[in-house]
Amino acid sequence: MANNLRIAVIGTGRMGTDHIKRLTHRIAGADVTGVVDIDAGRAKAAAALAGGHAKVWDDPHAALSSGQYDAFVLTTPGMLHYDVLMDALDKGLPVFCEKPLTADAATAREIVDAEAGLDARLIQVGFMRRYDAGYQRLRRYFTEGSLGAPLMLHCRHRNPDPPPNFTDALMIYDSVVHEIDGVRYFTGEEITEISVRKGRATAGAHGKLSDPQQVLMRTESGVLVDVEIFVNALFGYQVHTEAVFERGIVDIGNDEGAYVRSAGHWGGEVTPGFEQRFAAAFDTELQGWVNRLRDGLPPNGPSAWDGYAAAACCEAGVEAQLEGTTVTIALGKKPTFYG
Amino acid sequence: MANNLRIAVIGTGRMGTDHIKRLTHRIAGADVTGVVDIDAGRAKAAAALAGGHAKVWDDPHAALSSGQYDAFVLTTPGMLHYDVLMDALDKGLPVFCEKPLTADAATAREIVDAEAGLDARLIQVGFMRRYDAGYQRLRRYFTEGSLGAPLMLHCRHRNPDPPPNFTDALMIYDSVVHEIDGVRYFTGEEITEISVRKGRATAGAHGKLSDPQQVLMRTESGVLVDVEIFVNALFGYQVHTEAVFERGIVDIGNDEGAYVRSAGHWGGEVTPGFEQRFAAAFDTELQGWVNRLRDGLPPNGPSAWDGYAAAACCEAGVEAQLEGTTVTIALGKKPTFYG
Amino acid sequence: MANNLRIAVIGTGRMGTDHIKRLTHRIAGADVTGVVDIDAGRAKAAAALAGGHAKVWDDPHAALSSGQYDAFVLTTPGMLHYDVLMDALDKGLPVFCEKPLTADAATAREIVDAEAGLDARLIQVGFMRRYDAGYQRLRRYFTEGSLGAPLMLHCRHRNPDPPPNFTDALMIYDSVVHEIDGVRYFTGEEITEISVRKGRATAGAHGKLSDPQQVLMRTESGVLVDVEIFVNALFGYQVHTEAVFERGIVDIGNDEGAYVRSAGHWGGEVTPGFEQRFAAAFDTELQGWVNRLRDGLPPNGPSAWDGYAAAACCEAGVEAQLEGTTVTIALGKKPTFYG
Amino acid sequence: MANNLRIAVIGTGRMGTDHIKRLTHRIAGADVTGVVDIDAGRAKAAAALAGGHAKVWDDPHAALSSGQYDAFVLTTPGMLHYDVLMDALDKGLPVFCEKPLTADAATAREIVDAEAGLDARLIQVGFMRRYDAGYQRLRRYFTEGSLGAPLMLHCRHRNPDPPPNFTDALMIYDSVVHEIDGVRYFTGEEITEISVRKGRATAGAHGKLSDPQQVLMRTESGVLVDVEIFVNALFGYQVHTEAVFERGIVDIGNDEGAYVRSAGHWGGEVTPGFEQRFAAAFDTELQGWVNRLRDGLPPNGPSAWDGYAAAACCEAGVEAQLEGTTVTIALGKKPTFYG
Repeated sequence: MANNLRIAVIGTGRMGTDHIKRLTHRIAGADVTGVVDIDAGRAKAAAALAGGHAKVWDDPHAALSSGQYDAFVLTTPGMLHYDVLMDALDKGLPVFCEKPLTADAATAREIVDAEAGLDARLIQVGFMRRYDAGYQRLRRYFTEGSLGAPLMLHCRHRNPDPPPNFTDALMIYDSVVHEIDGVRYFTGEEITEISVRKGRATAGAHGKLSDPQQVLMRTESGVLVDVEIFVNALFGYQVHTEAVFERGIVDIGNDEGAYVRSAGHWGGEVTPGFEQRFAAAFDTELQGWVNRLRDGLPPNGPSAWDGYAAAACCEAGVEAQLEGTTVTIALGKKPTFYG
Repeated sequence: MANNLRIAVIGTGRMGTDHIKRLTHRIAGADVTGVVDIDAGRAKAAAALAGGHAKVWDDPHAALSSGQYDAFVLTTPGMLHYDVLMDALDKGLPVFCEKPLTADAATAREIVDAEAGLDARLIQVGFMRRYDAGYQRLRRYFTEGSLGAPLMLHCRHRNPDPPPNFTDALMIYDSVVHEIDGVRYFTGEEITEISVRKGRATAGAHGKLSDPQQVLMRTESGVLVDVEIFVNALFGYQVHTEAVFERGIVDIGNDEGAYVRSAGHWGGEVTPGFEQRFAAAFDTELQGWVNRLRDGLPPNGPSAWDGYAAAACCEAGVEAQLEGTTVTIALGKKPTFYG
Repeated sequence: MANNLRIAVIGTGRMGTDHIKRLTHRIAGADVTGVVDIDAGRAKAAAALAGGHAKVWDDPHAALSSGQYDAFVLTTPGMLHYDVLMDALDKGLPVFCEKPLTADAATAREIVDAEAGLDARLIQVGFMRRYDAGYQRLRRYFTEGSLGAPLMLHCRHRNPDPPPNFTDALMIYDSVVHEIDGVRYFTGEEITEISVRKGRATAGAHGKLSDPQQVLMRTESGVLVDVEIFVNALFGYQVHTEAVFERGIVDIGNDEGAYVRSAGHWGGEVTPGFEQRFAAAFDTELQGWVNRLRDGLPPNGPSAWDGYAAAACCEAGVEAQLEGTTVTIALGKKPTFYG
Repeated sequence: MANNLRIAVIGTGRMGTDHIKRLTHRIAGADVTGVVDIDAGRAKAAAALAGGHAKVWDDPHAALSSGQYDAFVLTTPGMLHYDVLMDALDKGLPVFCEKPLTADAATAREIVDAEAGLDARLIQVGFMRRYDAGYQRLRRYFTEGSLGAPLMLHCRHRNPDPPPNFTDALMIYDSVVHEIDGVRYFTGEEITEISVRKGRATAGAHGKLSDPQQVLMRTESGVLVDVEIFVNALFGYQVHTEAVFERGIVDIGNDEGAYVRSAGHWGGEVTPGFEQRFAAAFDTELQGWVNRLRDGLPPNGPSAWDGYAAAACCEAGVEAQLEGTTVTIALGKKPTFYG
C-alpha cells in the first residue's frame, strides 16, 4: 500500500465539509491537504476540520496546477463543475465529482467526449446509492437471473421536508435523479421515456410545490418504472425499491432497528434523513475510490457517462412535468470506452 | 333472534358450492333449503352438501316464485344475473349477488334504476374485500383523518397463475375490479379516469397475455392510484395496498404467519391463493348479510350502485387497455337513495 | 347434516355470555335452547341474548335430567365442575367444559377414570389455543419432523394488567396453564419437572404480585422450556412461542396488522387482549365441537386427560413457586383409552 | 488531527490479520508499522498485508521496548496476554487487547490492580458488541429510563457450527462471554449468580458437546437473564436480545436485508457468521480507539475491569455447568479509578 493520497476538496459547503470529516476520521489512506473555496473564512474553517494541515486556496485552477495533490473531490454547485472538470481532464488528474456532473445534458456530453478522447477514466460521479448494501444485493438479482427477467420497478423516495425554495424541477434534478441512476444501475439498461403525473397535493407543502408526484419511466427492454416522489412526507426519510421479476419479487429499504412494544404500539424509529440512511454508503464509496487510486488503478464507480445519462433523463423529466406528456430520451452513441 | 333464514343458492359452480358449505358449516342462522342449477346432477350434489334437506330446482324464476325462500344467493355467470335480479326486485326478494352485478355497465345501470325506483335496498354485491380486517383498518385512516388527506394509493394484485383462456380483458374484469372497488371503498370517491401501461411481459405467461400490466387511475379529489396486476406471478398470491396520506403512510396485506429460520433463510410461507387470504372475509361478509336479514333490516354491504360503478370503470379500463389512451369515466347522476 | 344441536349453557358469567353470543351469531348448526344459572336475573338476560327461545334453569342437574338438550357448555367457576361432569358422564351426555377441568388434580383424575370407565369420549376441555392457526402451524413442525428433533421452547405470555385480587398462584393456574397445555400439544410429551424464578418485580404491579416470573420446565425427552409470565406488561397482550429444533427455529405470535409510518415511527397496534388475539380460535373451537356432535362423532379436542395433566402441572408449579425448588411431576398411568 | 498513529500488531492469526487489513484499508489515522509473531513466515505475510512498510518482530517485549510504536494491538491466544500487558503497563504504553484479558480471573485481577496503581487507562478490551448500533440503541433504553426499570433479558446466541475440538467450557468462555459482557453493558450492573441447564442435545453436535444449553443469570438489582447458547444451530448465525422493562419490551438483532417472495416463500438470507453480523462494529470499535489516542486521550472502551468481570463470570459459569448448581459471583472491591 502506497503512502496516503493527498486530496484537495473543492467547495466547502455541507457536502464538502462532510467529505473532509469523512476523509479525516473514517477513511484509510487519504489526507485532506488542500481546501478550495472562494469564501476564505469558510475555507479556513474547513481546513481546521482536516486537522490544520490543509492548505487553503480560493481558485480551483490554481490548486489543480499546483502539483501538490494526487486527487480532487469536487463539491461546488453543479454549474461550476464544467470548468474544473475540463481543466482536470486536461491535466490528467482524477476527480471525485458530486452530482450533478455538470449543469445540463449538453455540457455533460462534452465532458463524456473529452474523457473518452483521453481513453482514460479520471472522473467518478457521486451516485452513492450504488454503494449501499441493499442496492448491491438487489442488483445481484438482476445480474444473476435466478428469478427470471425483470418486469417492473416500484420506487418510493420520501423526504421529511424540502429545503426552502425547492421547486418542481428540483424534485426531478435533486431527488428523482437518484432513482434514475438506480434504474440504470439495477437493469443495466438506458431509460427511453419518461412522464409525470400530478394529483392531489399535500396541504403541508412548502412553497408552490405540487407534492407528491409520480414519475413513470420505461427502459430499453420494456421494464416499467414508477416513482413516488414525496418531499414533504413529514414522517421521516424513506427510500424503498421493489423489483418484480418473472419468478419473484424483491424489495429493499424496509424499516429496521430496535423493535419496541410500548403503550399499545409495536415498531421502531423511522430513519430521519438520508445522512443516516446512507451513512455507510458514503463511507464505502469514498474508501473504494481512495483504495483504487492508491493501488494505481482508475476509478470503477459511476462514470461521466452515468452522469450524462442522468442529466438527459432529468431534462426530459422536467419537460414531461411541464408539458404533461411522455418524453422520449435519446442519448446518442455511447463511447465504447465506457463498456 | 328469529328462526333460521331459508336460503336458495342459484348456481352451483365453485362459488356456489363454497357458499353452500359456508352457510351449512360456518354461518349461524341460515339453512340452505334450495339449490338451483340447470345441470340436475350438479344441483343434486350441491343439495347433498347442504345436508340433504335442500330442494332442487332447475329454473331460478320458479324458485323465486315459490314463496319457500327468505333470500337468495346468486352465483351464476354474470351474463345470467340481469333476469334473476329484475325478477327478484319485482317480487321484493333480497339477493346476495356475486360480482359482477350484470354483464355490462348499461344493464347494471338498469338494475340500479329499478332498485332506486322501489326505494328499498334488496341487492348486496359480493365485494368481499370490504369485510377483510385489513381493508377495514385501512379505511379507518381515510375516514378518521388522523393522517390528513389521502394523496396516492399503490396497489399490488398478484396471482400465482390464471385460469385457462384468461385474457387481457379479464385481467380488468376479474382482478382489477377488486382494486376498483377498493379505491372507491377507501376514498369514498368515484374514479374519474383510467389508463393502462403494458411493458415487458413475463415469458411464463399462459396464452397471449401481456402480463404484468399497470393500471393508473384518478379519483374525484385527485388521488392518484397505480395498480400492478400480475396474474402469472408464480410465487403465490398477494394483495397489497399502500396509502399515502399527508402525514403518514399506511400499508396492509403484508406477509405473516409462522416465522422460520432454516438452511440460511428466514421467512415464511406465502399465501397460496385468495381462498386462504380472504377466507375470514367471506365468512364475515355472509354472516353479516344473514344477521341483517334475520334482524329484519335491509343489507348494508356493497350496493347495486357499487356494482354499477365497478362495471363502468372496468369498461373504461378495457377501452384504455385496447387504445393506449386515458379514458374518462362519467357515471351519471347517483340516485339519492344510495346516500 | 342433522338438525341444529340443542345446547344448554351452564353458567352465564363473562365466558358463558360470550359462548351464547358466539353460538347464536357465528356458529352454524347449534341453538342455545337452555341457560342455567343460580342467579335468575342473569340467566334471563343470557337467555335474551340467545334470541329469547332459551329455557331458563337454576339447577344444572335438572337441565341434565330434562332430556331436552343434545349437549352442554359448562362455564361456571372450576370448583363447581366436578358434580356437573360426574352427572353428565353418568347420563352419557357430552359437555364442552371450560378450563379448569375441576378444582384440583385429584378430582380431575377421578373424572378421567370415570370417563375411561365408560370407554366413551364425552368431555372436551376449552384449551382454545390449539385452534389458533399459528399454534396449529407450529405444531406441524413438531409432527412432520422436517427440522429435526425439538430441543427448546421459549414462551412469552404478557397481559396488559391482571384482574383485581390476582395472586402469584393465579399466574400459574390462570395464565401459565395455557403454556403448559401448549408444551404438551406441541411436543406430544408430558412435562416432568417445573421450577419458578422470581427476580426484580415491576413497581407497577397490582397488589402483592412478584411480577414478572420465569417458569422453567422439562419434558420427557428433555426439551427445555422457559416461560416469561408478565401480567402487568401494560403495553398490551402478547403470546409468543419460539421453538428451537436441530435444524431450524420457528416462532409464532408476531405482531401484525396495518403498518403505519408517521411522526418518526414505523409500526402498528399491539393486540389489546386475548379476546382479539384468539377470537378466531374460539370460533373454530366451538364450531369444530358442534360439527363433530352433529355428525354423530365424539369430540376430538382436548380431553379430560389433557385437563388432568394441566392441573397436575399447575399444582407442581405453585409448589415450586412457594418453595423455590424444582418439583417433579408424575401423572400415573394414562388410560389406553386416551391414545 | 495529529500524524498517523504507529501501531504494532502482536499476533498474526485470524484476528490479527483481520485487524491489520482493517487498519490498512478502512481505518483513518493509523498505520501498521510493526508486526509481531514467533512464526517468522506468518509475520512476514502479515507485514505484506500492511503494505510492506511494517517491521517484523518475533518478540513482543522487544517491540514494546523499541520506542517505535504509539500503540499496540494484542491478538495472541489469551494465555500469552499477561506478560505482554504487564510489560506495556510498566512502560505506560496503550494496548488494544482482544478478549480474554488474560487466561483466568486471578491474573485478570492482577492486571486490574496494576493498571489501577498507575491511575491511567492504558488497556482497552475487544468486546466489540458494545460498538454495534443495535447494542447501543438498546442500551439507551436502559440509561434513559423511558420504559421504566429493566426486569428481564432474554438472549439468543446461535452459531451455525463450532470449531473442531470445541468443548462445553468453550461454550461459556468463547460464546456466552459476549452475553455476559452484554448484560453488564446494558444494565450497568454486575452479575451475582449463574447456573446452567442442559436438556435434549442435538444429534448434529460435533464431538461431545451437550448443545444447546441454557445459562441463567441474575444481576445486582435482580434482573433475570436467560441465554440460549446453541453452537450447532446450522441455519446460520444469530444474536438476538430482548429486554423486558416495566412499561415496554425492546428487542434487537432481528433479521433484515433484501426481502424476497419466490416459490411459495417470503423472507431473506440469514447472516452466515459473526464477521458479517458485526463487521461495522469491528470498524467502529477500532476507529474509535485510534481517534481517542490521536487526540491524546485515554481509551474509553471496555476496560480491564470489564475483562476481569467477564473472566470471573465465565469461571463461575463453567463451575455451574459441571456441578449443576447455582454459583455465586463475588468480584471484590472495584478500584474507584474505573468509575
